[in-house]
Amino acid sequence: MGSQRFSRVYRPAILVGLIVAAVLGTAGDVVAQALRDVQTPDTPLVLKAQGSFFVGGEKAEQTQGELGNLGPGGHIAVNQMYVRYMVPQVGDGEVPVVMVHGATLTGKSWETTPDGRMGWDEYFVRKGHPVYVPDQVGRGRSGFNQAVFNNVRAGASPPASQPVWLRFSDEGAWPNFRFGSTPGQPYSDSQFPVTAVDELAKQGVPDVTRGGVPAPNPTLKALSDLAGQLNGAVLMGHSQSGSFPLEAALINPAATRGLVLVEPGSCPAIYTPEQIATLAKVPILVVFGDHRETPTGIPTLPSWQTRFEACQALISRVRSAGGQAQMLNPPERGIRGNSHMIMQDKNNLQIADLILQWIDERVSKRSVGNR
Amino acid sequence: MGSQRFSRVYRPAILVGLIVAAVLGTAGDVVAQALRDVQTPDTPLVLKAQGSFFVGGEKAEQTQGELGNLGPGGHIAVNQMYVRYMVPQVGDGEVPVVMVHGATLTGKSWETTPDGRMGWDEYFVRKGHPVYVPDQVGRGRSGFNQAVFNNVRAGASPPASQPVWLRFSDEGAWPNFRFGSTPGQPYSDSQFPVTAVDELAKQGVPDVTRGGVPAPNPTLKALSDLAGQLNGAVLMGHSQSGSFPLEAALINPAATRGLVLVEPGSCPAIYTPEQIATLAKVPILVVFGDHRETPTGIPTLPSWQTRFEACQALISRVRSAGGQAQMLNPPERGIRGNSHMIMQDKNNLQIADLILQWIDERVSKRSVGNR
Repeated sequence: MGSQRFSRVYRPAILVGLIVAAVLGTAGDVVAQALRDVQTPDTPLVLKAQGSFFVGGEKAEQTQGELGNLGPGGHIAVNQMYVRYMVPQVGDGEVPVVMVHGATLTGKSWETTPDGRMGWDEYFVRKGHPVYVPDQVGRGRSGFNQAVFNNVRAGASPPASQPVWLRFSDEGAWPNFRFGSTPGQPYSDSQFPVTAVDELAKQGVPDVTRGGVPAPNPTLKALSDLAGQLNGAVLMGHSQSGSFPLEAALINPAATRGLVLVEPGSCPAIYTPEQIATLAKVPILVVFGDHRETPTGIPTLPSWQTRFEACQALISRVRSAGGQAQMLNPPERGIRGNSHMIMQDKNNLQIADLILQWIDERVSKRSVGNR
Repeated sequence: MGSQRFSRVYRPAILVGLIVAAVLGTAGDVVAQALRDVQTPDTPLVLKAQGSFFVGGEKAEQTQGELGNLGPGGHIAVNQMYVRYMVPQVGDGEVPVVMVHGATLTGKSWETTPDGRMGWDEYFVRKGHPVYVPDQVGRGRSGFNQAVFNNVRAGASPPASQPVWLRFSDEGAWPNFRFGSTPGQPYSDSQFPVTAVDELAKQGVPDVTRGGVPAPNPTLKALSDLAGQLNGAVLMGHSQSGSFPLEAALINPAATRGLVLVEPGSCPAIYTPEQIATLAKVPILVVFGDHRETPTGIPTLPSWQTRFEACQALISRVRSAGGQAQMLNPPERGIRGNSHMIMQDKNNLQIADLILQWIDERVSKRSVGNR
């Protein structure tokens, strides 16, 4: 493991000490409580079906060395997208919802929250919607293409030819995800369950999107194809994938029945009038949390308020083209303290209800002829 | 992507052509049919609870460069184990079952089969058992420690310091997983759904176990801890993880109520008499498929028959120490053609029933006092 530094026995860092002192008023082990903290709902979940499958993918021919010398060279599948799904027994006619995670995360984002409450995946199912949760290509159960790393290791390719792996530090997450502007010091009205912030940290996985997946990102086509296979779906992206629903709609607008951009990392300003006209055919909802002026702590990234304003501009363009785009800005409704991880916030079901209401009004009630 | 070779548009290779010709008698696109092929059960699945959480993990301090220069250096979580679970509404008193996947795979192994049938995860739930499906540390939603790769990329560490990534080629899987001794030519009695072999290929992810996770493998302790948190569980391993239940039991025998070794990659001969005495306290079932004499095609790996015999030897040792260890050898019962991916075979539920029967007789009916 070379230069990696492990602390084999977990010791609460100063950071955690601050949280515990501030929030719980006591010291203790805040790790490994995950299962104990997981809550059981009051009523059973009745599923017509559940399971998993893949979308997309193609064959790559690789040498024995590229496969790690485990066996002979040959073909492997690459760029496929893993999808887990749940279909409710009741409400089978509701529009399916596809939930895509953000940078350095996986589909876990939408499951049980760090403090053990129900995730949006189950909640939307309980509200009658079939839910599909992918792992982006390059991450989680979708895997990535390992060949270049083995070539570098063997000296067959230069080190700089292998892509970078991204992860956020726990300290960096505090201002960037807007739990508080200083690590360990949550906003007084923070909706994020900060006592379980170490459980969020465990959701982090290395992200090879920057150079480790083909361009354009295969996840975009896979999402478009998935929506088509579902005969229409609401595509929901978060953060890094916040703009993915837009891109998937531009590939196949007929398959996308609605686009929900949750705290999108970007709302592109570069779309042509023709692209805007295409996006105007699909209802669009953008969702942001609170404390958007917080400096991200990452000099290369704009503040979330800057991104919020870029999304307002996109909404205006789409509306000018006759589209139904709108912003869900909880602070405007008196709902304060929501973070970047809004689907995990303590009021996550309150926010979900607002999105479900929008789906009901703007997506479900649209006749197919209007699409 | 440097030296990686992509075939952007999928073209059926000779291999696939052989399968299609042999099995379907027609040519066509066998890819991207996954969702269409997924089957809906006749009766709903009623869950008391479902969701996910993590077991284990610790903090590592990393530099900005080790984190990919996404933000400032700091701490991240490493070596945590992701677990997805389903608890049935009925049968809550049945023993929980933990299902661990094999090399270059993830927990997906136990979910919907490549041809769209019900996986063991759901089937065991329908039989009343709470089911817990982890991703091994270093893979899937459990993530891995990326620092060394970024250090190599930056020239701060030598290329040979980064661990190797393992994957099986599709061609190598045919003899090693015993679908047929020659790629594309299934055994006449093969139970594996070979028309969907490309969907199995998509389950493959790079495996960094050989050098990329600490020693001992954190998954072992995490499994033991999970069993303890569940107040006792049956631990089921497959292939690479086939021996993991034994190792977890040696860490905490009181937490393991039964061990199921499905096509284990090894049954260690090195256990001391004291360790065998410990294992003799826990019911053990070893499960193998058919065609075990097939050469694996991987010179460094023994045949599955050799491993079968090593497991027979371990069973004998445990029995001599008074334990309840036994072999489930389907061919002895007239069930022929099972592969290494027995949980995905066409008769996967028949095999599951035999394991469930064993759990019922040897685990569930044991009083706690006997443990």
